[in-house]
Amino acid sequence: MKRRITRYTDGTAEVVDDVLVAEAPVELRLGGVPIAVLMRTPGHDEELGLGFAITEGIVIGPHEVAGVTLAGDEAGSRYELELSDGVVIDPEQFRRNLFTSSSCGVCGKASIDAVRVTARHVPEGPVLTAALVESLPDAMRDHQDAFAESGSIHAAAAFDPSGKALAVREDVGRHNAVDKLVGHLASTSWPLAPMVMMVSGRISFEMVQKAAVAGVPVICGVSGASSLAVDLGEELGMTVIGFLRGGTFNVYCGANRFS
Amino acid sequence: MKRRITRYTDGTAEVVDDVLVAEAPVELRLGGVPIAVLMRTPGHDEELGLGFAITEGIVIGPHEVAGVTLAGDEAGSRYELELSDGVVIDPEQFRRNLFTSSSCGVCGKASIDAVRVTARHVPEGPVLTAALVESLPDAMRDHQDAFAESGSIHAAAAFDPSGKALAVREDVGRHNAVDKLVGHLASTSWPLAPMVMMVSGRISFEMVQKAAVAGVPVICGVSGASSLAVDLGEELGMTVIGFLRGGTFNVYCGANRFS
Repeated sequence: MKRRITRYTDGTAEVVDDVLVAEAPVELRLGGVPIAVLMRTPGHDEELGLGFAITEGIVIGPHEVAGVTLAGDEAGSRYELELSDGVVIDPEQFRRNLFTSSSCGVCGKASIDAVRVTARHVPEGPVLTAALVESLPDAMRDHQDAFAESGSIHAAAAFDPSGKALAVREDVGRHNAVDKLVGHLASTSWPLAPMVMMVSGRISFEMVQKAAVAGVPVICGVSGASSLAVDLGEELGMTVIGFLRGGTFNVYCGANRFS
Repeated sequence: MKRRITRYTDGTAEVVDDVLVAEAPVELRLGGVPIAVLMRTPGHDEELGLGFAITEGIVIGPHEVAGVTLAGDEAGSRYELELSDGVVIDPEQFRRNLFTSSSCGVCGKASIDAVRVTARHVPEGPVLTAALVESLPDAMRDHQDAFAESGSIHAAAAFDPSGKALAVREDVGRHNAVDKLVGHLASTSWPLAPMVMMVSGRISFEMVQKAAVAGVPVICGVSGASSLAVDLGEELGMTVIGFLRGGTFNVYCGANRFS
């Protein structure tokens, strides 16, 4: 989104045109009932809806979703999650669950247990090499169109075991980037083949949770991982990699996937 | 939080001890009813509870809060927001509001209108200079104890109009860092004196919202600002500054505060 701004360089101001990352709310509905409002970068909204439904455990896979369709006439800001025939989810029940999902006892252990119930089987593969992992940041950057424009947008990318980029999604929200990526991948095949996910920022508990629920065994980040993120990854047999930049990276857990 | 990891450097692996940023859930309650579960870095939890209550519009100021007290015996993971005598808030009503707070029509304009109702008067001051703004990142970094340890934690800092650091708070969550900062400042004086807030990451709509509701007129970030964040800041007469690093920064709106 273009905007006229004032740029200061070494104390000197000049007025220039700049590109800002677009941000706007979108509402997801289930049976006409709002279940989430996400601040996201517009685009790929059907993927966002499907991915969110999967990674938050609302549905167990894309086969439970008939479609994510525009609801109402408000310029694409309201989507209905249409369930497949025979799938019944009470939105009110779900709203309560979503709200307290990471609660259920409210300690780190309880959070991990809650995810373990929802998480898919995390596959054994892929086999990793240092060279493969080191190649991911540049490969992701090559596909970041919006980052090139604004310099400030999160990204999530999926790679096959050879390091080939399968898809990249960008969003003002880090969780949305992951959800759009998962929604895209899940709409093509399910369960997902063993793959590597790379994210542009920090790896928090929720990022590992989303990867785990989607069945992605390896998650890499440009920045560090939190304690609870690593605890969860280790518990589920995942590989969690952080500070992946300039030929260096940290393997927090799951180093056994390296050949 | 110390942890043994495998670090790869140019293809060579070594096992080293590393410090991870701590992350754990905390539950906030109002009248015994859970109103939010936040994934946060433990510490300053009373400030987090107070700041969250203020910046999310649950209370209109610290005078409505008698205290934020540990509830239950689960190792400090559950806090009760105790209201002052005569203050009545229905938690159920609030839970519904929190859920749909950024909804209410679900378009950018409606989101801005919703914040405008809650936001305090944004003060005229302070007067800014390029030299003052340029000094903020180093001043913030000087106070980032946890960042020095883990290299991966968000921070929010408040500065008086002369550029003197008033307080810095760090957290695994960017919103939590702001809420802890606001909670700390609000517990000392209210309304807040005109000040400058600096955050370590991107400036999204919610970051500007929290600053606005706390009555902070200037927000600076190390990375860029989103379109809706700038729209909101402009609407409320705030100064929004991004990409503040190495002697350069962008003023997205409110350049009139520069002398």
